[in-house]
Amino acid sequence: MRRRARKPRRVASRTIEQRPWNQIVNHLSPIEVLSADQIEAIHENSLRILEEIGIEFMGAKAQDAFADAGAEVDRDTGLVRMDRGLVEHCLASVPNSVTLTPRNPKRRLVLGGNQICTTLVAGPPNVHDCERGRRSGNYKDYCRLVSLAQSLNIIHAIGNQPVAPIELPAHNRHLDCYLANLTYADRVYHCSAIGAERALDGIDMAAIAQGKEREAIIDQPAVITIISVNSPRRFDQAMSEGLMTMSEWGQAVVVTPFTLMGAMAPVTMAAALSQQNAEALAGIALTQITRPGAPAIYGGFTSNVDMKSGAPAFGTPENVQATLAGGQLARRYKLPYRSSNASASNVVDAQAAYESEMSIWAAVMAHANMVYHGAGWMEGGLTASFEKVVLDAEMLQMMAEVVKPVLVDEDSLGFEAIGGVPSGGHFFGAAHTLARYENAFYHPFISDWRNYESWEEAGCEDATQRASRIWKQLLESYQKPPMDPGIREALNAFVARRKGEIQP
Amino acid sequence: MRRRARKPRRVASRTIEQRPWNQIVNHLSPIEVLSADQIEAIHENSLRILEEIGIEFMGAKAQDAFADAGAEVDRDTGLVRMDRGLVEHCLASVPNSVTLTPRNPKRRLVLGGNQICTTLVAGPPNVHDCERGRRSGNYKDYCRLVSLAQSLNIIHAIGNQPVAPIELPAHNRHLDCYLANLTYADRVYHCSAIGAERALDGIDMAAIAQGKEREAIIDQPAVITIISVNSPRRFDQAMSEGLMTMSEWGQAVVVTPFTLMGAMAPVTMAAALSQQNAEALAGIALTQITRPGAPAIYGGFTSNVDMKSGAPAFGTPENVQATLAGGQLARRYKLPYRSSNASASNVVDAQAAYESEMSIWAAVMAHANMVYHGAGWMEGGLTASFEKVVLDAEMLQMMAEVVKPVLVDEDSLGFEAIGGVPSGGHFFGAAHTLARYENAFYHPFISDWRNYESWEEAGCEDATQRASRIWKQLLESYQKPPMDPGIREALNAFVARRKGEIQP
Repeated sequence: MRRRARKPRRVASRTIEQRPWNQIVNHLSPIEVLSADQIEAIHENSLRILEEIGIEFMGAKAQDAFADAGAEVDRDTGLVRMDRGLVEHCLASVPNSVTLTPRNPKRRLVLGGNQICTTLVAGPPNVHDCERGRRSGNYKDYCRLVSLAQSLNIIHAIGNQPVAPIELPAHNRHLDCYLANLTYADRVYHCSAIGAERALDGIDMAAIAQGKEREAIIDQPAVITIISVNSPRRFDQAMSEGLMTMSEWGQAVVVTPFTLMGAMAPVTMAAALSQQNAEALAGIALTQITRPGAPAIYGGFTSNVDMKSGAPAFGTPENVQATLAGGQLARRYKLPYRSSNASASNVVDAQAAYESEMSIWAAVMAHANMVYHGAGWMEGGLTASFEKVVLDAEMLQMMAEVVKPVLVDEDSLGFEAIGGVPSGGHFFGAAHTLARYENAFYHPFISDWRNYESWEEAGCEDATQRASRIWKQLLESYQKPPMDPGIREALNAFVARRKGEIQP
Repeated sequence: MRRRARKPRRVASRTIEQRPWNQIVNHLSPIEVLSADQIEAIHENSLRILEEIGIEFMGAKAQDAFADAGAEVDRDTGLVRMDRGLVEHCLASVPNSVTLTPRNPKRRLVLGGNQICTTLVAGPPNVHDCERGRRSGNYKDYCRLVSLAQSLNIIHAIGNQPVAPIELPAHNRHLDCYLANLTYADRVYHCSAIGAERALDGIDMAAIAQGKEREAIIDQPAVITIISVNSPRRFDQAMSEGLMTMSEWGQAVVVTPFTLMGAMAPVTMAAALSQQNAEALAGIALTQITRPGAPAIYGGFTSNVDMKSGAPAFGTPENVQATLAGGQLARRYKLPYRSSNASASNVVDAQAAYESEMSIWAAVMAHANMVYHGAGWMEGGLTASFEKVVLDAEMLQMMAEVVKPVLVDEDSLGFEAIGGVPSGGHFFGAAHTLARYENAFYHPFISDWRNYESWEEAGCEDATQRASRIWKQLLESYQKPPMDPGIREALNAFVARRKGEIQP
């Protein structure tokens, strides 16, 4: 008789039960919100935008590259017009899956197929937690947020700075950020592509952390960047050059138009998606013109604004539909797809939860390979929240369980077990139950399922208060991932040298 | 030139913007969590349960009916064993769509195809709002909850009592409940099927409200009941007889096994679904044995318990998977499908929102035709919450927008509009935007999209506080739906007469 594995599937920490480290594998089919004809109409419309209207690329480097590749470049306006032949040629060389290898190879990520990875929130100028309130971004909170992400198995990568460390000098703070990413975590991180220099520093430090030279990671990318298009139809010089630098060195580039319908994109879904698609394809074309075969990911971030106030909104029905459609477009080109988990709420409340659930469901059902801003995004991206990191981690873990395959075999069909319990009885003590109960179901860490009386007696904590308790526990029990002292020294030396070199 | 319709799509009330009254039409394909082979394995397993293990039906009336139909009935245990021939014969006569006509024919509901309707929360013994706290169910709150549902277009029907009016005599309070359903709302309502008498009273009052006799609504059903199976495998006498009474009079019966995995059902998904399916098919068979062609709906409510405490849990990953699988089973039999919106949270917080979102997404993506407990369910069904009614209404409205078709045509593709805005510009003032902005996007009533400073200045209300304000406004501006005085008199007379007849 086969001995049943009794070992808990989840890794118990001193604080919370978690899934073991691994990517989410999505066993469900994607939801398609558009018909094949509608996708073709948007595809054709975006090719027409690329051919007739054009996309502005600022800076001679990108313009030269496009001109050399055969695009029509207007040097006065920066508008690049490319015909469908060039677009299709470029698309043909993009790998349909990217593997990213960070300093800890166990944290390797695959962006492609049915694999999903998530990232920590990226980019907010402010930070919030329920104990100390809202404050400006700073390096201490930066490090704490990275440590928190490292403590949560469901957060697979560190995106762009989880909060801006605004007290540090702007011209070289990226070095401190990379150092924090590398020392407080062992995961894939985002490399700033605001200009070539920041990108190269990020690539170099990722290589050093693996005891390698920059050249050695060209064919084994370690870092990823997000190229945020200045929609409509503009790539600024710093982003264009950052993109090209990343591609030159074989690192992963996500091209994400920020197409808020009614503001930076037309008010209609079909037009906004056309613009998103044209912008994404233009950026991806530049990655391939720079280095055929360089990893490139299709990013979608089409949502809407409140037409009364112009305020951006996320997790809206329109955002969901656009996310689903974006997945269809990415699949049409066989490209990995990046989406987001976003909410406009100013507080970690029911709105934050339902807008994020809308985003997460949309991303997962769109078969996104990367859920950027996966955990911690608040206020439409203006604040990183410690409580929201924990809340999002719970919601992401739940989705990871939803997309798991269901086992149907003789044992699990349990005919004998069903017959063994009398009608009106219960299965609590049944052998079929006892053999499986420990790991039968997802164990949440925020959800409180106690009855009202027990919950009241224990202090009436709501989910946000429980999240607050959890991030504190996680940070208390946090341990830095191990790093070879020689590598630590090399990284510190690199940062010191570069700080001396970079001019303010 | 065609004049553009400028009339707002939404019905503005004194309080909040809402979708107009209509059912949700689901244009997305269902998510299938099980393969066709897995569905067949569960189908076969459940037929084997029906054939070999049997389902207990208490009371001679149901047992006689099954015996007459050719099932094997054990009179000692009440176990009914039916072969697949009988099951299939019964399934063949169930209509695949049901139309329910309440006293206001504009509130007619279709349960079938891609149509979705939702109901108010049903059954809690307690009630809660943020102003007055948690209290026992009472008739005043009953009436207020029905009034609140009537004020929200997205709540299509009144389920079983939204809260138990426990101060009223148990033997005749159903009459007061039906009267409240009929006078405070004009929608389809749930008829208690705890015994024949309560069912007949509900049917009679629905008929009187239409100025008809009971016989006149046999072929135009007005009311619906939920038969909650005493899982595992037991239909008690009252429920069995209530079911048969409803079917005798052509009214709609939902058969919903309450199969909490690990408690009233096996701990494995495949076995729990097999049990759910066997129980649902047995109940549905009885509807058809009673009256071939009687409307019957497949109900699924498989979730899990916390294996540490035995506490029921809802909106869990397992609940989502079971809901999706339930939809596949219902479609296999071409039956309308009922699911739920549930959460175990003790407070209207982020947990309440994410568990309900999990339930709602699952129900909608499972192609449920009825989302029972659609609005207001808290504490795993032990409390009806006024704030949760409003929160759920917002979440349901959002899903109604998600499942809408996307328009892709020349106008909406907006090629000219895209070319008309310079790169790096914006679309706020574009003619394409101005012509459409009023109704381009969903207008939420709880979500607050203001920036942090404006939100703080306005008092830092969270979503639950805003929901509190909204239900008060809705009840303040609530108006009873019109009713002919003759009908009102007839209803009152019926209630008075029946109160005299029914013995305590």
